[in-house]
Amino acid sequence: MSAPIIAIDAMGGDFGPHCIVPASVACLAEFPSLHLVLVGQAPLIETLIAGIPGVDHSRLRIEHAAESIDMGERPGQALRGKPDSSMRVALEMVRDGRAHACVSAGNTGALMALSRHVLKTLPGIDRPAMIAAIPSRNGVCHLLDLGANVDCTAEHLCQFAIMGAVAAEVQGMASPRVGLLNVGSEETKGNQQVKQAAALLEGIEGLNYVGFVEGDGLYRGDADVLVCDGFVGNVLLKSSEGLVTMMVSRFEALFRSTLLGRVAGLLALPLLRRLRGELAPARHNGASFLGLQGIVVKSHGSAGPDGIKSAIRRAMTDVRENLPQRLSGRIEHLIRNM
Amino acid sequence: MSAPIIAIDAMGGDFGPHCIVPASVACLAEFPSLHLVLVGQAPLIETLIAGIPGVDHSRLRIEHAAESIDMGERPGQALRGKPDSSMRVALEMVRDGRAHACVSAGNTGALMALSRHVLKTLPGIDRPAMIAAIPSRNGVCHLLDLGANVDCTAEHLCQFAIMGAVAAEVQGMASPRVGLLNVGSEETKGNQQVKQAAALLEGIEGLNYVGFVEGDGLYRGDADVLVCDGFVGNVLLKSSEGLVTMMVSRFEALFRSTLLGRVAGLLALPLLRRLRGELAPARHNGASFLGLQGIVVKSHGSAGPDGIKSAIRRAMTDVRENLPQRLSGRIEHLIRNM
Repeated sequence: MSAPIIAIDAMGGDFGPHCIVPASVACLAEFPSLHLVLVGQAPLIETLIAGIPGVDHSRLRIEHAAESIDMGERPGQALRGKPDSSMRVALEMVRDGRAHACVSAGNTGALMALSRHVLKTLPGIDRPAMIAAIPSRNGVCHLLDLGANVDCTAEHLCQFAIMGAVAAEVQGMASPRVGLLNVGSEETKGNQQVKQAAALLEGIEGLNYVGFVEGDGLYRGDADVLVCDGFVGNVLLKSSEGLVTMMVSRFEALFRSTLLGRVAGLLALPLLRRLRGELAPARHNGASFLGLQGIVVKSHGSAGPDGIKSAIRRAMTDVRENLPQRLSGRIEHLIRNM
Repeated sequence: MSAPIIAIDAMGGDFGPHCIVPASVACLAEFPSLHLVLVGQAPLIETLIAGIPGVDHSRLRIEHAAESIDMGERPGQALRGKPDSSMRVALEMVRDGRAHACVSAGNTGALMALSRHVLKTLPGIDRPAMIAAIPSRNGVCHLLDLGANVDCTAEHLCQFAIMGAVAAEVQGMASPRVGLLNVGSEETKGNQQVKQAAALLEGIEGLNYVGFVEGDGLYRGDADVLVCDGFVGNVLLKSSEGLVTMMVSRFEALFRSTLLGRVAGLLALPLLRRLRGELAPARHNGASFLGLQGIVVKSHGSAGPDGIKSAIRRAMTDVRENLPQRLSGRIEHLIRNM
């Protein structure tokens, strides 16, 4: 893929087009092969672009969409009530082959509903899931779902496991260990969905299922892929990020208090801050929606310019790796073995 | 309460009586008012005590129980199949007024089922919940449920909210802010239980309900009491603990690498280690079961001597504060307002 075309939902996110438009346009200078389509209210986007010096207009287009979806809007309303929203139009560009991927910082539930409706899921997959790589003791753990599905069945969890395993393989991991997040490691532990999902996963040939993994096992590196429902994944990720943020501020206070402390701070704070960045992939780096017939990357609603850039980079990587097609082939094989 | 009598399930936990008996007996020297009843296989317990020098036998009794409950045993089996388990006998001592509190490091599900069966819940409460204080930016947040209930209804979440608020009040907090853990702060966000629970909580007069709180809000101090189902609470707590453990090991490696690093480590590592201790209250400090007609403290299965001591201290505090009776009065008042 020499020239990835990324459709940006220019109206989404907490800060809207005033943040997303300049942040996206800045990526053109950063990524020389990138082509962008900014989707949203054309007059507003044009005004915003006009204020930015040195824009390479040969790699930038605007696609008009009259409506936009609010952050608190119900997914059903976004799906049925707004046929011309920027999010939907950006997804339709991917469906129609006019863009290779869609990036949105908008309402997660709406993006989930519209993605399924416009792009459709891969054969054998009922619902897409959000995935991101979380740092663990000796590498990373691919955690999913991160919030696209707050009510999951055992079958959904199994599909996430399969998609997560394939995504880890695509990224070069051989026979990734797939765990199911649970409150204990004994087979009697857990809620109904998790127990049923475990029974299903044990029966899938070709999947390296390693059983239940507890919360601390995520960071200990007990699995390469860890599966949970989107409610749990979202809470886990955000609480981890909040914990590191709290620790950074405690350390800052400690390190400010003495001269020796300032020396220690020089060493320790960069490590903490880097970890905070790594722990907030959905917020800072974008999370891929797996399981769709097309590439969609969710940038966090409160993402700043760095977040948008990382989401665009994530989308470019998914395009280069041809993720949906490679998922599709492997998923069909694994689901036949279920 | 001048002389609290604590019944210890001497057979529970990953390490069993060989850990629990000496750790409990050591507490007699630490807490001069404490009286202990060690419940379990009397000959074994007697042998273990005989090996410990200087035991104050005037404050120590053994209560024989022939059976013990395995860590992986199904709660139903523990309830119906083992009428003479150490856990059950310890709980019966509380029920019969022969002890003021029960401490167990055993199987959480079994402890939950047996506690409800033997002690009964308070009027208006269907299920007990595990609660512990988690450090937050400016103090602590009381988080519940931490794993006693992995499948919760909206009504259960409401009862947890009421119990958590009252427990925080008992510990001296005026009008504690009660939040519901969710994936977003907008009212359209969340799974069915959480949305329904929010609607119920908004209607309770006398409860300072502050709405949805996201995972990072826990550590930011957005609520004094945070309510979630036991699956989510357990994953949150264990993952936080795992994250801090990972950070401690990363910092240790960093701090070992240079002389300057060693200086920084002297300052930073104690803070990290203290935080790790604070973040593992259920593991290291014991978590109270709220909502029972009696005091039950769960010590983590893998708790060492320090964990047992902290759980006994927690139980003594709950006895002194007369927690169940004070909960009972306030709960009835709040539930009438539901």
